[in-house]
Amino acid sequence: MSLSNITYVIFDVYGTVVDWRSCVIAEARALGERKGIEGVDWEAFTDAWKDGYRPAMDEVNAGKRAWTTNDVLQRQRLEEIAGEFGLQGLSEADKDGLNRAWHRLAPWPDAIPGLLRIKAETPIGTFSNGSFHLLANMARHSGLPWDFILSADNFRAYKPAPEIYLGAIELLGGEAERILLVAAHNYDLMNARKHGMKTAYICRQTMFGPNQDRDLEAEDDWDIVTDSIEGAADALCG
Amino acid sequence: MSLSNITYVIFDVYGTVVDWRSCVIAEARALGERKGIEGVDWEAFTDAWKDGYRPAMDEVNAGKRAWTTNDVLQRQRLEEIAGEFGLQGLSEADKDGLNRAWHRLAPWPDAIPGLLRIKAETPIGTFSNGSFHLLANMARHSGLPWDFILSADNFRAYKPAPEIYLGAIELLGGEAERILLVAAHNYDLMNARKHGMKTAYICRQTMFGPNQDRDLEAEDDWDIVTDSIEGAADALCG
Repeated sequence: MSLSNITYVIFDVYGTVVDWRSCVIAEARALGERKGIEGVDWEAFTDAWKDGYRPAMDEVNAGKRAWTTNDVLQRQRLEEIAGEFGLQGLSEADKDGLNRAWHRLAPWPDAIPGLLRIKAETPIGTFSNGSFHLLANMARHSGLPWDFILSADNFRAYKPAPEIYLGAIELLGGEAERILLVAAHNYDLMNARKHGMKTAYICRQTMFGPNQDRDLEAEDDWDIVTDSIEGAADALCG
Repeated sequence: MSLSNITYVIFDVYGTVVDWRSCVIAEARALGERKGIEGVDWEAFTDAWKDGYRPAMDEVNAGKRAWTTNDVLQRQRLEEIAGEFGLQGLSEADKDGLNRAWHRLAPWPDAIPGLLRIKAETPIGTFSNGSFHLLANMARHSGLPWDFILSADNFRAYKPAPEIYLGAIELLGGEAERILLVAAHNYDLMNARKHGMKTAYICRQTMFGPNQDRDLEAEDDWDIVTDSIEGAADALCG
């Protein structure tokens, strides 16, 4: 496919554009070293932290809890698991600072070169469960050249709720087939296609770590299948 | 004031950043020439078109009509007044094309240089009653280097409804005093200040044309008072 019929290219962020896992592990480990905390399995801690999102977001989507932005869900989950993983003696400021690691995630090496090529032809934006403020901070910190930011905050609903897909389509002019979602998560693309968007799959086989057991390959005939944002740019920009 | 305590700088667009009036007059006149339409007062037509917004937006804010994006309000108003001003013989496509003139508004000469200087230090975004799709198109067409777009569409409310100010503050991290609104309209700054934002006034004495009778000067002690976006950059960036 080409960009000739595409008005906007939107991107999932965690995993697709940024390597959240390595970044959070590194920031948590660095904090532990500063605070003299030993014996923590930082990989397991980070995975457990991330694993808390989905259930929390599902509760919000199901109406079991009021709208709560991702930043707050992350901070609550950190509070829940810090003791369990042996992170003792952290002040509130330490925990707030660690939670802000999610605002400082670094892109995969192919991300910025690919984004710049696509941006040269078509406006690009985020389409993420991350909070708006987090996504804006991350863009600034990591040099992500978004033209606009779309966040779950804008729709007060998390993927895969229909409201976030339909809300994005409405904001972006109402023509779903002119919007391309780029994502490393098959479930996200499945929902985007259900609502009429075009789809580009980026295979990221280590985004969940060395034991990744899902999203190892394209699970449908997505419009583009590749393994980097540069690859998506190759397909789109020729 | 400096940017040291400011996290985001947001901008009103019509009048503040772009010269909507000259652009719409020029596009309407050019359409008239292509279609052989004579005897139209293009300035009066453009002013009447713009004058229709406020009542239509007020009806939406008052709940007298369902949420309707600015693009649609503009198109309906065009339909209402085209005959009155002698714009005869326009096809639906002609009128759709003329309505899109609002997606192609050009910046004042000081706008892009000033925006780039501010953007180098702090993320910048729109804060406009224009539709999201319109603002994204305009950014691309006119080279406006926004980091993010906030539109009435995001909040389903038009300025000066509290929902749009409070919604923007929430999306941008919740600290109103760290958000600076730049606007050429005193009413907009008054509402921003009421909700705790910082304020920068840009004096645009011809944004409503040669007979402008409002917003000719700062009507309060705004944090910055200047006459261009470059002037705002001087105040902010030193």
